[in-house]
Amino acid sequence: MNRDALLPAPGRGAYDRSLSRVERDAQHRERLLLAASEVLSEGPLTVARIAARAGVGRSTFYEFFDSPDHLLRQLELRVLRALEASLEGALATARTPLERVRAIARAWLTELEARPTEARVALTPRASADLLSPAGKVLHAALTRSAAAARGVGVGWLSATDDSSLLAAAAAVEIVTRKHLAGPAVDDAQRVLTELVAKLLR
Amino acid sequence: MNRDALLPAPGRGAYDRSLSRVERDAQHRERLLLAASEVLSEGPLTVARIAARAGVGRSTFYEFFDSPDHLLRQLELRVLRALEASLEGALATARTPLERVRAIARAWLTELEARPTEARVALTPRASADLLSPAGKVLHAALTRSAAAARGVGVGWLSATDDSSLLAAAAAVEIVTRKHLAGPAVDDAQRVLTELVAKLLR
Repeated sequence: MNRDALLPAPGRGAYDRSLSRVERDAQHRERLLLAASEVLSEGPLTVARIAARAGVGRSTFYEFFDSPDHLLRQLELRVLRALEASLEGALATARTPLERVRAIARAWLTELEARPTEARVALTPRASADLLSPAGKVLHAALTRSAAAARGVGVGWLSATDDSSLLAAAAAVEIVTRKHLAGPAVDDAQRVLTELVAKLLR
Repeated sequence: MNRDALLPAPGRGAYDRSLSRVERDAQHRERLLLAASEVLSEGPLTVARIAARAGVGRSTFYEFFDSPDHLLRQLELRVLRALEASLEGALATARTPLERVRAIARAWLTELEARPTEARVALTPRASADLLSPAGKVLHAALTRSAAAARGVGVGWLSATDDSSLLAAAAAVEIVTRKHLAGPAVDDAQRVLTELVAKLLR
């Protein structure tokens, strides 16, 4: 859906009557998610601020979400699902271990750069006891699968990795990506991320 | 001071009268810090729980600290100062870049393993926007100084590091150390940390 077409919501009674109830609900939900991602990039996430930005009432917010935190988790879930699909695709198409690491770095960065605000949520560890952020955990799983695949075909590259190296690689990519998204941008970030992983897992 | 001799505090009127007021205050402060580190390893840090564990009244707590968070910062500051001194010593005695990295890993791990509860506080990022924990920042500074020293004498090792590699190395060491301290312990942790840094900064 086009972002400009979504915000603010049309006034009462001015909705497109050709839309079904289900379609209007989907539009409202989308509008609230978009409004929240904008509000989030500016300050604290409250129902009042999200509803005002979306041009809807507070009660409309509660038709779709239990709380700002609930909405935040939905926003995050969306980035994580997109990231998983994208990393899955990268793993499926790459043929050599180096290609695989390059494809992972490209998929990771492309997906997160496309939604920087949501990406920053997904890149922040949820609890202080968590070692990796939710996005970092998705990356860690993709790296772990790559390493297992490399071990399966018996090549040296990626196949000698241990748990600590895989964890370190995910943490290294996560922290440099956070720095990159917070700005100033890291020069040639995709190459930098590829090299960090290559150094740790080769 | 011996931990066993400190907790719990002697009953009212049972203090060692040979101690000066200043010495008794120092003992009380130490006792509260020790009690807090014990309470912290078991659950939330409250004035009531800290005072009960230390065997003193709540008012004694407030003679020394403004809040549990204030005490926590003092506890953390102590680990950080010890860590800084220890890393400084490591840098001063090591002569080659590899020796330097080994000495840093040894000093880091020895210092944090000596106080695992306080170490976990110092290894947790303070704000969600922070890239590194307070301890991670101290390590990052030590690695940055090592790299600058290596560049000064013109050797290849450590001298070609960029900002992203230094940040990644600190993050890698931080996360594997957190995993190590949370348990189960990482086998041969000192060698693992040395290799992670060597791979990223060589």
